[in-house]
Amino acid sequence: MIVAMQENATEEQIDAVIEAMTEAGVNVHRTTGTMQTILAAVGQTAGLDLAKFEMLPGVLHVHRISAPYKLSGRAFRPEGTVVEFANGARIGGEQVAVIAGPCAVENREQIFAIAACVKRAGARFLRGGAFKPRSSPYSFQGHGIPGLQMLHEAAQAHGLATVSEVMEIAQIEPMLPYVDCFQVGARNMQNFNLLRELGQTRKPVLLKRGIAATVEELLLSSEYILSGGNYDVILCERGIRTYETSTRNTMDISAIPVLKKLSHLPVVGDPSHGTGRRDMVAPMAKAALAAGADALLMEIHPNADKAVSDAAQTLYLDQFEKLMGELRLIATAVGRTL
Amino acid sequence: MIVAMQENATEEQIDAVIEAMTEAGVNVHRTTGTMQTILAAVGQTAGLDLAKFEMLPGVLHVHRISAPYKLSGRAFRPEGTVVEFANGARIGGEQVAVIAGPCAVENREQIFAIAACVKRAGARFLRGGAFKPRSSPYSFQGHGIPGLQMLHEAAQAHGLATVSEVMEIAQIEPMLPYVDCFQVGARNMQNFNLLRELGQTRKPVLLKRGIAATVEELLLSSEYILSGGNYDVILCERGIRTYETSTRNTMDISAIPVLKKLSHLPVVGDPSHGTGRRDMVAPMAKAALAAGADALLMEIHPNADKAVSDAAQTLYLDQFEKLMGELRLIATAVGRTL
Amino acid sequence: MIVAMQENATEEQIDAVIEAMTEAGVNVHRTTGTMQTILAAVGQTAGLDLAKFEMLPGVLHVHRISAPYKLSGRAFRPEGTVVEFANGARIGGEQVAVIAGPCAVENREQIFAIAACVKRAGARFLRGGAFKPRSSPYSFQGHGIPGLQMLHEAAQAHGLATVSEVMEIAQIEPMLPYVDCFQVGARNMQNFNLLRELGQTRKPVLLKRGIAATVEELLLSSEYILSGGNYDVILCERGIRTYETSTRNTMDISAIPVLKKLSHLPVVGDPSHGTGRRDMVAPMAKAALAAGADALLMEIHPNADKAVSDAAQTLYLDQFEKLMGELRLIATAVGRTL
Amino acid sequence: MIVAMQENATEEQIDAVIEAMTEAGVNVHRTTGTMQTILAAVGQTAGLDLAKFEMLPGVLHVHRISAPYKLSGRAFRPEGTVVEFANGARIGGEQVAVIAGPCAVENREQIFAIAACVKRAGARFLRGGAFKPRSSPYSFQGHGIPGLQMLHEAAQAHGLATVSEVMEIAQIEPMLPYVDCFQVGARNMQNFNLLRELGQTRKPVLLKRGIAATVEELLLSSEYILSGGNYDVILCERGIRTYETSTRNTMDISAIPVLKKLSHLPVVGDPSHGTGRRDMVAPMAKAALAAGADALLMEIHPNADKAVSDAAQTLYLDQFEKLMGELRLIATAVGRTL
Repeated sequence: MIVAMQENATEEQIDAVIEAMTEAGVNVHRTTGTMQTILAAVGQTAGLDLAKFEMLPGVLHVHRISAPYKLSGRAFRPEGTVVEFANGARIGGEQVAVIAGPCAVENREQIFAIAACVKRAGARFLRGGAFKPRSSPYSFQGHGIPGLQMLHEAAQAHGLATVSEVMEIAQIEPMLPYVDCFQVGARNMQNFNLLRELGQTRKPVLLKRGIAATVEELLLSSEYILSGGNYDVILCERGIRTYETSTRNTMDISAIPVLKKLSHLPVVGDPSHGTGRRDMVAPMAKAALAAGADALLMEIHPNADKAVSDAAQTLYLDQFEKLMGELRLIATAVGRTL
Repeated sequence: MIVAMQENATEEQIDAVIEAMTEAGVNVHRTTGTMQTILAAVGQTAGLDLAKFEMLPGVLHVHRISAPYKLSGRAFRPEGTVVEFANGARIGGEQVAVIAGPCAVENREQIFAIAACVKRAGARFLRGGAFKPRSSPYSFQGHGIPGLQMLHEAAQAHGLATVSEVMEIAQIEPMLPYVDCFQVGARNMQNFNLLRELGQTRKPVLLKRGIAATVEELLLSSEYILSGGNYDVILCERGIRTYETSTRNTMDISAIPVLKKLSHLPVVGDPSHGTGRRDMVAPMAKAALAAGADALLMEIHPNADKAVSDAAQTLYLDQFEKLMGELRLIATAVGRTL
Repeated sequence: MIVAMQENATEEQIDAVIEAMTEAGVNVHRTTGTMQTILAAVGQTAGLDLAKFEMLPGVLHVHRISAPYKLSGRAFRPEGTVVEFANGARIGGEQVAVIAGPCAVENREQIFAIAACVKRAGARFLRGGAFKPRSSPYSFQGHGIPGLQMLHEAAQAHGLATVSEVMEIAQIEPMLPYVDCFQVGARNMQNFNLLRELGQTRKPVLLKRGIAATVEELLLSSEYILSGGNYDVILCERGIRTYETSTRNTMDISAIPVLKKLSHLPVVGDPSHGTGRRDMVAPMAKAALAAGADALLMEIHPNADKAVSDAAQTLYLDQFEKLMGELRLIATAVGRTL
Repeated sequence: MIVAMQENATEEQIDAVIEAMTEAGVNVHRTTGTMQTILAAVGQTAGLDLAKFEMLPGVLHVHRISAPYKLSGRAFRPEGTVVEFANGARIGGEQVAVIAGPCAVENREQIFAIAACVKRAGARFLRGGAFKPRSSPYSFQGHGIPGLQMLHEAAQAHGLATVSEVMEIAQIEPMLPYVDCFQVGARNMQNFNLLRELGQTRKPVLLKRGIAATVEELLLSSEYILSGGNYDVILCERGIRTYETSTRNTMDISAIPVLKKLSHLPVVGDPSHGTGRRDMVAPMAKAALAAGADALLMEIHPNADKAVSDAAQTLYLDQFEKLMGELRLIATAVGRTL
């Protein structure tokens, strides 16, 4: 932490800040410039509340000079993390992974048809939601555990790993037999109690960025999971909220290379939620891959227009299969496989 | 719902859209202009997924023409809602309410000193957090139920009503004896399961706007609580996330009159979280009041700089008492009392 | 400037950064911590391109530790600036100023009727646009200099000072006889050539914040005018662009007290552009005043619904007169007059 | 235009809206639902001020149902626009174009070295700024016309076309002999007088999106140029302002396919300004290309760290040459050449 004093700060004010800093348990290193005095905190600064110091009289600004996360940082594991699944698939290595499936598991026939398509197209992960809290109280809310059972069976039949969203702590235990990877949705990115519990499991967690979360906040959230000893976290960019309305969210493609630089964790791009529009999924899937994504997450449905949720952003199965072929070319162009 | 077709849409495309609309259960009213065909849905459109229609071939845009909420709308109760509390205080009437207290209940002495100050200053609501999930896993996390007991006792001693944040469904039941008003934090504004459960209680709920939530989304969230039969909802503006960094959030003061126009529910302004800076609390509290807020929510602490959380935005007790006097003048100027 | 090195930065990298800093003309003060090395620049850092240093190998972050503006800063004139006008009116003192008028000067009758109303209501500034570049090329574009002549005559008849927008350098000279205050619109806030030229005049300049400009960028822009020797600059908050769409812009009321703290320049609130909605002008005018604005800028028109531009946000004359009475009460409540 | 009335709107209110609409010159088509009355405007609605109708009593919302631009729309030229240059290069066709050069032309040696590199790498456009208004008044401001002469000579020597930014109307004429394509910067995207004048020239214009501009506003701005008869407009995505700070701007990659869908004009991606960071230029250039960009615009410099402006986002020449090779692979993967 660096405290920059105002140019006209008095010696009394400077002393008071130094006292507050030492009281907080750090050593203070003072630089007195011709214009301005600077106080650098030396020692354990991780738990410090920086904003508090900014309010002290005579202080201009307080700067944090080290990243607020540790286990999520690239330096913790410079070679990068590869998450492995029981079916032999991996996320984070040279091969790009594809996770596909419906927004919601609707019935047996639907999820088996989709699983067969996922397999046929060469992808190895089947996603499907069972708990669907919707922004309107008047919409379909999901099948729950029976939905997960169908998802699991369909995946088993085709050698796929399953990914499904967990909404609250009480769902973790009953979901365990059916999911190979827990998904934490954007709205729960800062549900720290849930993250902490997931840190106690030994199942991979796909953590979605909140629609107003910074890259740094995403890494602070993954820190909650990692600090519990669960190192298999996959970060997901799925669009942020901006003033632009031509797409439902603005997919922040640059977050992908930024996350790859700052962290060792694999990064997934979700062009379905990232754009909210079926006709934008293909170009944005390609963009995410070209920018360095380790995996892609896409919503697909045999009857996309009639999907009970997220219909507008869901690909038809033939669109998905065609896209997989195009993505393979991009993967090769960036030196990877798919 | 209005579907505007593209200028070059074919008759086949128009017919396909009409079919999709009737299949979704609405009647269709067609206007064929010289340039463009427009299809209006007549009937029950509340459950329709508009985005789905936007993806159909030949469609330019789909417009929703009625508000997606009902019980939260001003028309449901044009005279406005007044929430009443056991200690006789009200939120929503002519008198402006003030809710004050520490971010977190720290100990008995702290909360009793604050309660005495709240009472002395003429406010009637004591707030204090007991469950404090923090964005860093390395920070203080709150006292839980024992903290609420202290809060309750301190409030009782001074005839105050209590307000405290509920983080998850499992906390509702144990909190019931100690809180007069549940607070739902910004991060939980779209935790629909929690909202639904709170809709089953008969305790007032103070619902905070998410940092990236629109006014409409806030009203959709309150709809979850109201649709359970709990009509005592209080809406809270506490700052949204924008590109500006001189304040922690950008307090959207205009949301206050907008909410008052669109909804019958009382509106609270929270200048502490709205700005994140102690020196901005007073001007923004005044602004919120001048713009029509029914109540104000502020963080106060006898030793603000040493508060275990939110120190930077917390007022000292004497600052709060002074501010209460200034707010009284503004209240009078806008034809209210405080 | 402070350069925080990465924890694993090598001595070679540190040396290279020190060399780049000294080459840029500053002295370097090094702090070697157990975790991290910090390099502080001492000396003249105003012209430094900080981002450049951030790209050097081994660098974690670069922090600017002094404000990038000088003349606009509060420290330059702690007592605050009061701008004086020929008609005796002032902006920045104890009395709150009101600037009112139509978006565009339409004709003689219109502007004289408005001037009479402004005077009657007790305000002392008449605004009106003569150059109206519109976002659609198919809209009305203003009367030019003849419009300004009408504005000037109407103002003279009632002892008012005039305010009108200047769009480009070539307009400054011909506008001089007719305007008492140049307005620089939000879109020109970073038209640095225009600002520089206005810095050469000795007429007050009302500088509007761009819809995506930070408070700091607004102060950097005012610096351009002040550095030319023209110290009569008035800053204006008129709404920023956010994701919220219930108002046209989000009026950042907190920018008013922030600007008052950081700068000595007077601050105006513009609730007409700030909200884009007539029904929100009154509450937001009151909020701006309660938060510390030195002046208010409002669009008014005898036939508001038929105004050729900005009709939706324009007050009728009787609404304006009623509002003036209400604002007077707020002014008193915050210890000022109006 | 569709006017949706409130559910409780009276017949008088409905009649008043119909009258206002007919007065504005459109025919009105009324749909009376069980809940709500809807009024559709039929006829010439291009010039209508929609916000004005939204303020009328009893109105819930006003929706625009046709795009506000015409000449920029895809329907105007469904096959797409290809802009041709004197040196035989094109922007908009199957071949992806690359525009590279320094932020500012600094001296003869610099620009000739860069031109040689651009040629060697297989690109055909040389960019370089001569007028550099900077956000701080204390920075380098460009060489003006002599800078353009150097740019032109260096380009001629290598068969390249030149691109340079025009800041104001007075610069158009003197720039004509030296530039093959005018660039309009983000800050001037809504400088409508400048756009109108450029519409009178017969030189291609590269129009950058403002940092807070929507896709629709960008197309409205291009409409100004096209409506003057200059159809050679190239649209440029170069990052928008959001709350995220890990990159200087958030490059909105999805704007590329959205623009390609809505408009016939070619689209350029600018990863240098889009990210503000040298280490993010390569992944974002690839992403833009994969998403369908017709061209890429990049800043390069033989001594990037010492560039007088935009140093942090400027590539070294060898980085650029290496990137060109990688981009060629992506171009092939998406069925194009480079």
